[in-house]
Amino acid sequence: MDSEQLREYGHRMVDFIADYYKTIETFPVLSQVQPGYLHNLLPDSAPDQPETLEQVLDDVKEKILPGVTHWQSPSFFAYYPANSSVAGFLGEMLSAALNIVGFSWVSSPAATELEMIVLDWFAKLLNLPEQFLSRGNGGGVIQGTASEAILVVMIAARDKVLRSLGKKALEKLVVYSSDQTHSSLLKACQIAGIHLENCRMLKTDSSTNYALRPESLQEAVSGDLEAGLIPFFLCGTVGTTSSTAVDPLAELGKIAKSNEMWFHVDAAYAGSACICPEYRQYIDGVETADSFNMNAHKWFLTNFDCSLLWVKDRYALTEALSTNPEFLKNKASQANLVVDYKDWQIPLGRRFRSLKLWMVLRLYGAETLKSYIRNHIKLAKDLEQLVSQDPNFEVVTPRIFSLVCFRIAAVDNDEKTCNNLNRSLLDAVNSSGKLFISHTTLSGKFVLRLAIGAPLTEEKHVMDAWKVIQEEASFLLASQVK
Amino acid sequence: MDSEQLREYGHRMVDFIADYYKTIETFPVLSQVQPGYLHNLLPDSAPDQPETLEQVLDDVKEKILPGVTHWQSPSFFAYYPANSSVAGFLGEMLSAALNIVGFSWVSSPAATELEMIVLDWFAKLLNLPEQFLSRGNGGGVIQGTASEAILVVMIAARDKVLRSLGKKALEKLVVYSSDQTHSSLLKACQIAGIHLENCRMLKTDSSTNYALRPESLQEAVSGDLEAGLIPFFLCGTVGTTSSTAVDPLAELGKIAKSNEMWFHVDAAYAGSACICPEYRQYIDGVETADSFNMNAHKWFLTNFDCSLLWVKDRYALTEALSTNPEFLKNKASQANLVVDYKDWQIPLGRRFRSLKLWMVLRLYGAETLKSYIRNHIKLAKDLEQLVSQDPNFEVVTPRIFSLVCFRIAAVDNDEKTCNNLNRSLLDAVNSSGKLFISHTTLSGKFVLRLAIGAPLTEEKHVMDAWKVIQEEASFLLASQVK
Repeated sequence: MDSEQLREYGHRMVDFIADYYKTIETFPVLSQVQPGYLHNLLPDSAPDQPETLEQVLDDVKEKILPGVTHWQSPSFFAYYPANSSVAGFLGEMLSAALNIVGFSWVSSPAATELEMIVLDWFAKLLNLPEQFLSRGNGGGVIQGTASEAILVVMIAARDKVLRSLGKKALEKLVVYSSDQTHSSLLKACQIAGIHLENCRMLKTDSSTNYALRPESLQEAVSGDLEAGLIPFFLCGTVGTTSSTAVDPLAELGKIAKSNEMWFHVDAAYAGSACICPEYRQYIDGVETADSFNMNAHKWFLTNFDCSLLWVKDRYALTEALSTNPEFLKNKASQANLVVDYKDWQIPLGRRFRSLKLWMVLRLYGAETLKSYIRNHIKLAKDLEQLVSQDPNFEVVTPRIFSLVCFRIAAVDNDEKTCNNLNRSLLDAVNSSGKLFISHTTLSGKFVLRLAIGAPLTEEKHVMDAWKVIQEEASFLLASQVK
Repeated sequence: MDSEQLREYGHRMVDFIADYYKTIETFPVLSQVQPGYLHNLLPDSAPDQPETLEQVLDDVKEKILPGVTHWQSPSFFAYYPANSSVAGFLGEMLSAALNIVGFSWVSSPAATELEMIVLDWFAKLLNLPEQFLSRGNGGGVIQGTASEAILVVMIAARDKVLRSLGKKALEKLVVYSSDQTHSSLLKACQIAGIHLENCRMLKTDSSTNYALRPESLQEAVSGDLEAGLIPFFLCGTVGTTSSTAVDPLAELGKIAKSNEMWFHVDAAYAGSACICPEYRQYIDGVETADSFNMNAHKWFLTNFDCSLLWVKDRYALTEALSTNPEFLKNKASQANLVVDYKDWQIPLGRRFRSLKLWMVLRLYGAETLKSYIRNHIKLAKDLEQLVSQDPNFEVVTPRIFSLVCFRIAAVDNDEKTCNNLNRSLLDAVNSSGKLFISHTTLSGKFVLRLAIGAPLTEEKHVMDAWKVIQEEASFLLASQVK
């Protein structure tokens, strides 16, 4: 690590990266390589002697980039976005350069303290209740992903119950959510040892736009209580992955509270929108939650990974996840003067991730960030309108944020043909390399998902995407008629 | 995300970082701030309007850096190192720039394939058995930390047993390791729901230099079998965190195998050294292991985080950790043509971490990396010699790699005074800001740990550190005599 070599090579890498962004629209959005493509392009073993930066960068261009799906392309509309920004990128650089391992306060006090401060800032932007702020028993913490967020709160909730009821109660613990909830919930259950037959993924349908009905929850809870089981964990979602369904937090929270369940709110994607006053309503009821999670790395210009988790009772986390080996003991921790984030998460080590979020908030400011979100939502609204005006298509479920769920409409209620057509459309559109969208199913319908949220996406990209979709659809429909 | 702004700001950040490295020796190694120091230096909420990069960088200098413990300082000797290097840093930059989320192959084929290839390269450097390579049922995967590595293999092992014996067997599952094993093992047990009274942290002592005795293991296993319990997981360590103890893998593995236990080898720190033929012996017996882990982010010039895990049976992982939600389904995955690393880990999302490891291996080459390791070990050997020659001090346990465990020697067997003296010495040395070392306890002795492994550390830094330690010790011993 020579500072002058770092300077020279660093500058070259900055130019390489700036050039990548400059030409990003020339790449197929979805990588078009075949499985195993890289195996024959690279040697079988590591080199014994150093190679040059030129050789490596040439290989990045010629061998790696063809295998990259370009999440930062303005025509990336699949899944949910994973925003990169100048501020987020600079934060990543700085964090990688300091390269501290912030497991406990003493290992780099600034890492812990900046995280607490920035999470408080963010909680205020979202107008989260006081109890989620760090000044009391609550507080925020940066996890890698929403999966880890949900796992740590589930472990906290599980151990809280088991401490009072004994370990044998594990087999009676019941988890509730809608069938639209992200797969990370079931994965957390698997890891935490919750019996899968006690995981209630309650059915939803189009009558609530795939939101969980409080009556369904109440009914399930009552049944389980009667059966001698122990309801202990409820996950509500604001902006499901399939279709941005919004569960009614306040009503669900009431049921959770009266049954002493831990109530977790997953707003991984849509949480970003809730910094705008006009979208804040979607997390109304969050005051009834025990924990709240949103991913700044999705739609908030903060490079992956940066998943924000707030809890009301930090001790529920630390009682379940603390370790205190001799080699990490230090005066500040022993005197309980500080937060040691190692006890709020699965791993011991942790990067200085608050830097990038801090830089995003400061270099852009809250007002710019709100405009950023609003612009994507406006583009999605415009697209929704266009889809609904095209007789070949239908909007499958009303758009709320920046995701449009649509499909080629069924003719004569022939759902099977319709699904096949839409599957073919998905393939055709994505193999064009011109854009990348993904899919889901809703009530058995194969549905196309177009999520707007890449930082470079402008109106023309959405319009171009829609044109490609229309053209491929016309072609498919025409060949079907033959 | 404007490519020209990225270029301009990126260059400025490179210079900022290069300047940081140039002046890194001017900072106190261990941050000297008090708990809560940052709270009053930053505003209470995020700004509404954008601030400039200058303002942010000024704040980094004036407010953040004083709270940073400088892991990259050449005088950082605490814990274990967390290497940053030019190659590792460039890899982080590129990975942050592409900012892909590589949960499944299709989401960026290059991310999955490069990871498989580079982990195969590394396995060959370590001369790991064939079964750990990706061409058969095994393979390598990058986890965030050794804690996550141990958790995922424990879940895999747990579920393998529970699938055949039923879920009720959970309460009978027993985990074995030495009492020197990293705290992440107990944390994994906590998370996985293993009953803590079934966690056997077997006692070690100086007679084996704190390595686990196979006889202790055999005895414990026999006792548990007699009691109707089910031995299912053994963790052996090569290079414990306290004192780099090396468990006898071959003998332990034999016991694990004959009792159908999963055998995990944690070589988080010392694994790096094992690429040198003369240190490869310390992982002899790894062929009996089911999984093997080492942290490239510790002592292998790869920026944090990058923890390498190899397994012989990838299906044990994927059977325990797979999810298959509709919104992630794709042809390559459905046809079983590809590896989807989401099913080898806790989180869904994952960064393109193989880039940095690939760049480290290529820009330095295996021979340079071996010299790098050897140099640190030589420096540690020299220091060990110096310590043993100073009548005030003693080496507490023989050095194997680059960690020296020592203390001010006890006078007249007065261990209590001796411990207090060493505790004071630790404080004095670390408050000087001139170096940062940490501590452990071994058989009740308070022991100082000086781990050599920062990329910038040269002979003079070790000699300077030793001088400071000697001086502070003389001062303490002199004031004690009074």
